[in-house]
This record gives sequence, structure tokens and C-alpha cells, in this order.
Amino acid sequence: MPEKFEIKSGLRNYEVCWVKDCVAAIGDQRSSRSFLVIDEDLPTSGKISKLFSKDRVIRLKADEKTKTFDSCSELIRQLVDRNVRRNEIIFAVGGGVIEDVVAFVSTVLFRGVEWVFIPTTLLAQADSCIGSKSSINFGVYKNLLGSFYPPSKVLIAPNFLNTLPADELRSGMGEILHFYLVAGEVKMASQLKKQHRELLKDPSGFKPYILASLKIKKSVIQRDEFDKGERNLFNYGHTFGHAIESVTNYRINHGQAVTMGMDIANFISWRRGHIKEEVFNYLHGLIAFNLPEFRLDPKNWAKYLQALSKDKKNVGKSLGCILTRRPGKMFKAQLPLDQRLGKDILSYFD
Amino acid sequence: MPEKFEIKSGLRNYEVCWVKDCVAAIGDQRSSRSFLVIDEDLPTSGKISKLFSKDRVIRLKADEKTKTFDSCSELIRQLVDRNVRRNEIIFAVGGGVIEDVVAFVSTVLFRGVEWVFIPTTLLAQADSCIGSKSSINFGVYKNLLGSFYPPSKVLIAPNFLNTLPADELRSGMGEILHFYLVAGEVKMASQLKKQHRELLKDPSGFKPYILASLKIKKSVIQRDEFDKGERNLFNYGHTFGHAIESVTNYRINHGQAVTMGMDIANFISWRRGHIKEEVFNYLHGLIAFNLPEFRLDPKNWAKYLQALSKDKKNVGKSLGCILTRRPGKMFKAQLPLDQRLGKDILSYFD
Repeated sequence: MPEKFEIKSGLRNYEVCWVKDCVAAIGDQRSSRSFLVIDEDLPTSGKISKLFSKDRVIRLKADEKTKTFDSCSELIRQLVDRNVRRNEIIFAVGGGVIEDVVAFVSTVLFRGVEWVFIPTTLLAQADSCIGSKSSINFGVYKNLLGSFYPPSKVLIAPNFLNTLPADELRSGMGEILHFYLVAGEVKMASQLKKQHRELLKDPSGFKPYILASLKIKKSVIQRDEFDKGERNLFNYGHTFGHAIESVTNYRINHGQAVTMGMDIANFISWRRGHIKEEVFNYLHGLIAFNLPEFRLDPKNWAKYLQALSKDKKNVGKSLGCILTRRPGKMFKAQLPLDQRLGKDILSYFD
Repeated sequence: MPEKFEIKSGLRNYEVCWVKDCVAAIGDQRSSRSFLVIDEDLPTSGKISKLFSKDRVIRLKADEKTKTFDSCSELIRQLVDRNVRRNEIIFAVGGGVIEDVVAFVSTVLFRGVEWVFIPTTLLAQADSCIGSKSSINFGVYKNLLGSFYPPSKVLIAPNFLNTLPADELRSGMGEILHFYLVAGEVKMASQLKKQHRELLKDPSGFKPYILASLKIKKSVIQRDEFDKGERNLFNYGHTFGHAIESVTNYRINHGQAVTMGMDIANFISWRRGHIKEEVFNYLHGLIAFNLPEFRLDPKNWAKYLQALSKDKKNVGKSLGCILTRRPGKMFKAQLPLDQRLGKDILSYFD
């Protein structure tokens, strides 16, 4: 995978570029008709903001409250107050929240304005920066709204990773592992396992892992951008992971919840005869280094099942999830939300 | 053009079907998992609503207030309160306003839900029902937001036209004429001119005119769905027309404002040497039957120019508009918003 590659999209092809110095790269790309929307807590936020005129910089708090329909409305109001025009470009610098909000607003403003994404977290660099998806909360409903609308360019700068807390890096590693298992890239997973302590100390080594992740995602989204078939397999680990995030009130980061979600999906795959115990154990050994510190209290299993029952991918009373026959061979399953599933989950945590 | 044809879209191909009886057709298509959003003032609204269970019918007033971001938010809330799921289909029955709101909400809800459009006005049947565009007002800003998101099916039933007021039919005829001139179909325009009095009395004769309109639009949107080039030419008549709607506070219907907008564009094309006087006169004779009763008071010409200056397609201080070299040969022009333009417009109304 070269330093620069193109993603083919039904909406608009776009480029992903690896850049050494993000300040220089943004400086090259921005013009007097650009806006900047930036995570206000980013250590380099001041330096980047200086590249834009003052009234063209909008700082946002990167939390769940910012990821709402109302806050998108507020961002539109700010842009319009500053006289935004349809031929202008919005630069989004931040992680998933900034990406979601700017992507969503860019989708609907003037029926679509250009935006450039500069992902600053490992999760955003190795996963969400490609694939066109945005997710927005509506009232109490998480991720109820969203759009498919790619940026016109993605600039990935490794230096952002140096200031990330370990928790954020672990979260990114969870999502990276998930791509490797879906694609059957167990070598990469095993290498990441070996190197992870080092990487937590010096994140500059993440580059090949990020590129391998993006390569896997690229090939799938180019075939199924709108998530009608094959792309569904990337939900592997996510259904069971989301429910962990939900029952812990998002105390556990997304990627580590997904790591445990994969472990649960593998466990259920074993219990239902899709893989042998050895395979479950082998996969468990491969990803265990990134599991979160969490054990479901047996008293709470009903709460966990309830969280599962609210998954958007459910059809009627059965859980839509991804199970495995081996690394690289995932499949969609509909599991009745019944006692048997409750028992399987209880014995996973036993 | 057959009774049923397909529109190719980068987002999803969709079918346009001519149906005799809309109640029967909707009855055939809807399921227990469908919602209905319907213009509450539609004479057949009661009959159509009975096809759906009561809690799955949402009635909307088809006015500009309904076409706002806030009212889209309210529609989402109503759908979610009624437990809408991602695999459900929203049936939209009405004119442009109902189309805009349902298209916009369907774009963002669960990152896109299916919707079926049943256009009930001549304007919607002959124009807006294909082409994927929605437009939504944001605060005082008209059509600031929107999306490209086609329905999964369009059902055109001629019987809706019988109950339309003449004003609505004239509006539709303006949009139809505009397609004919853009495509150079002067024969169709001349036939419409001859038959228009008859059609106002018995709108069932509109069918060939609607189909010819859709045929022209189909061929252009399939080449330029996202309005990056050729599709821009459909703005012919619209720039000058919108400004008429604006200075008259929307007292004049859209299609007749567009008819006058074309006449102004032709007049300017003549004044700037792109067509001869005879061509202007010929075109004027072709469309004059559908001109609105409006003359710009010379005192108001600055107000008209100001309305033009707010057009979304402007670049800097010049007006982005479409002029003509002959029917079927329109072109994009950037006209300085200066005294000369003011004078041209004044002499048009002189």
C-alpha cells in the first residue's frame, strides 16, 4: 500500500494521503475560502487554528453531546452566520466525533459541501476515516441518524498519535485486530500482539498496522459501500461489544469492547458448533492482550441481553450478529434472544 | 417512453410507474411495516390513509413551514415514537413539500431508509419526482439544506391532477415548458401552447407532456446526477424566476415565475448578442401563454437585483445564470451584478 491511495466511491472518489507534518499539509491545502472545525482539546489545536483566519475557526468539544442532531443544527448556524458558501471546504481535525458532525453537516449543507478529514486518533486513522459513514445521536437514541458522505481527501499524520492516552491507542488496536480477523490476516494480528507494549510507548510504529487495516477496509467498501452485504461482516465483534459499552455506560472504550465482542462471538461460534474449542482458544490467545478489564456480573445478564435486544440490526425478536467459521470466514447469523443465548453469554463470563 | 421505466442512479436505481388507480397501487405496495406521510389537504387523503394502520399515518400541512429543518426533526421524532425500524418503507403522498421533507428524513434516518413517492401535483409528476434532490429551509434561509436521495419507486397516478386548482396546473406547465426549451423540443412546447386551455379543463391529457418532460430530465440526470455540469442547464429560467418569487413574497407560483425567468434570460441573451431579436420574439410567442401577471415596478428594480445577488450559484459579485444560443443550446454565464444588468432587466419590464 503506497503512501497515497484512492478510494472508489459511488458518491465521489477520494484520496488518502500519509503526511509527515499535518500543519504543513493543512497549510498547503487550505485557502481563504476554507473553514476549520477542530477538537478544542487537541494539543496542536492552536498551531493548526493559526492557519485559518479567526472567524473561520470553530472549536468543538469532542463528546457525545456534540454528536447530536441539535448540535449539528448549531454548527450549521455558525457556518451560515459566517457566510459559508457552497464552494467552500470544511477541514475537520479530530477523532470520530468531529468526523461524524462535520460529515453529517457537509452532507446536508447546500446538498453537499466538500470536506477534508484529518483524523487524530488511532481509531479514526485506521478505520473510520474511510467508508463514508457518519452517525449522529437523536435525543436519547444513539446513532439513530447518519449519512454516507465521504470527504474529498483524508490526510493521515502520525504525529497526532504521540499525544494520545494509552486508552485511545488500545481502542484503536481493538478495531485494527477486528479487521485482521475478518480478513484472515492472523500474521498481522500476531505481530501486533507481539509489538503492542512497544507501540504503546512509541506509537510511530503503528504505520504498517494502520495501512494494513485500511487496505482491508478499502477492498470491502469499494465492493459494498452502502453496507448491503459483505460490509456487514465488519459488524463482527460490534454487536456484543456495543452491549458491553451500553451496560458499562461507555466506561470501556469502543475498541476494547469490540475485542471482547469478538471473543464472545467466537465463544458462541464454538458453542454452536461452527468452530472447535482449539480454534476458540487460539483466537482468544491472539486477542486477549487487548481485552478490557470487565466481567459481567451474573446479576446483570438480563440487562446485557436487553442491550443486545435493542441492536439496530435485529429482525423481530432475533439478534443479528456476525459469527465465525475461521479467521477470514465470518458469517451473518440470526440468534433468537432466548435462554440459550443468555446461558451462552453467562458461561462466557463464568 | 413506456408506462414504466428505470432511472439509473449512483445511489440506487429506481422505477417510475404510471398507475391508473393510486389507491389500488399503494394498496399493492404497502405492507404492515410501512408508514404513510401525506398532505393533509389532499382530497383523497382519507381514502389513502385507510390503507395503513392508524398509528402509521402522519398528516402534514404542505407549506413552507413544514419544509424546515425543525419540522424534519419533528417528523423524525414522530416516526421514532412509533417505533420505526430501518427496514421499513415510508410512502410519501403529496407535492414538492411532502417530497422534500420525506426525502430529507429518509436520507438521514438510519443512514437511509426506503421511501416511495406518489406525486400529486403536476410539478412533482413532471419534474421533481425524479432527480434525487431535496431542499429544506433553515431558519430564514430558503433551501439552504438538502440531499440527493432517490425514492425506491415513483408511482404516478393521473387522477390527482383532476382536483388541482388552475394555478397549480399553470405552475407545472412552466416547468414542463422549461424542459422542452432546454432540450430543444419546440414541437412539444408549441403543442402544449395550443392545447393548454383544454388541459386546464381536463388535465387527463397531460400524460404525454409529463412523459416527455421526464424523458428529457432522465437522460440528463443519468449523466450528471449530482449537478456538477450538464444538469446545471436546468437552472434555465430559475435564477430570474426565483428572484420574482422572492420580490413578490411567493404570490406567483414557481412554474409561472420560471416561465417569466426564461423570458428574461432570453431577453438578456438577445441584448448581449447571443440570439437575434426574431429568436427572442419567437420564444416569447411560444411561452407567453404561461406568463404570470406581473410587472416589476421600476421603483423596485434594486430590490430585484438584490434578490438576484443572493442566488446560491453566484460566484463573488457575479450572477451565475443560464442563457441561450437557441432552443436546445443553453449555456452557463456569469454576469456582473452591475448597472448594465439592472438596465437590461428594467427594459425587459418596460
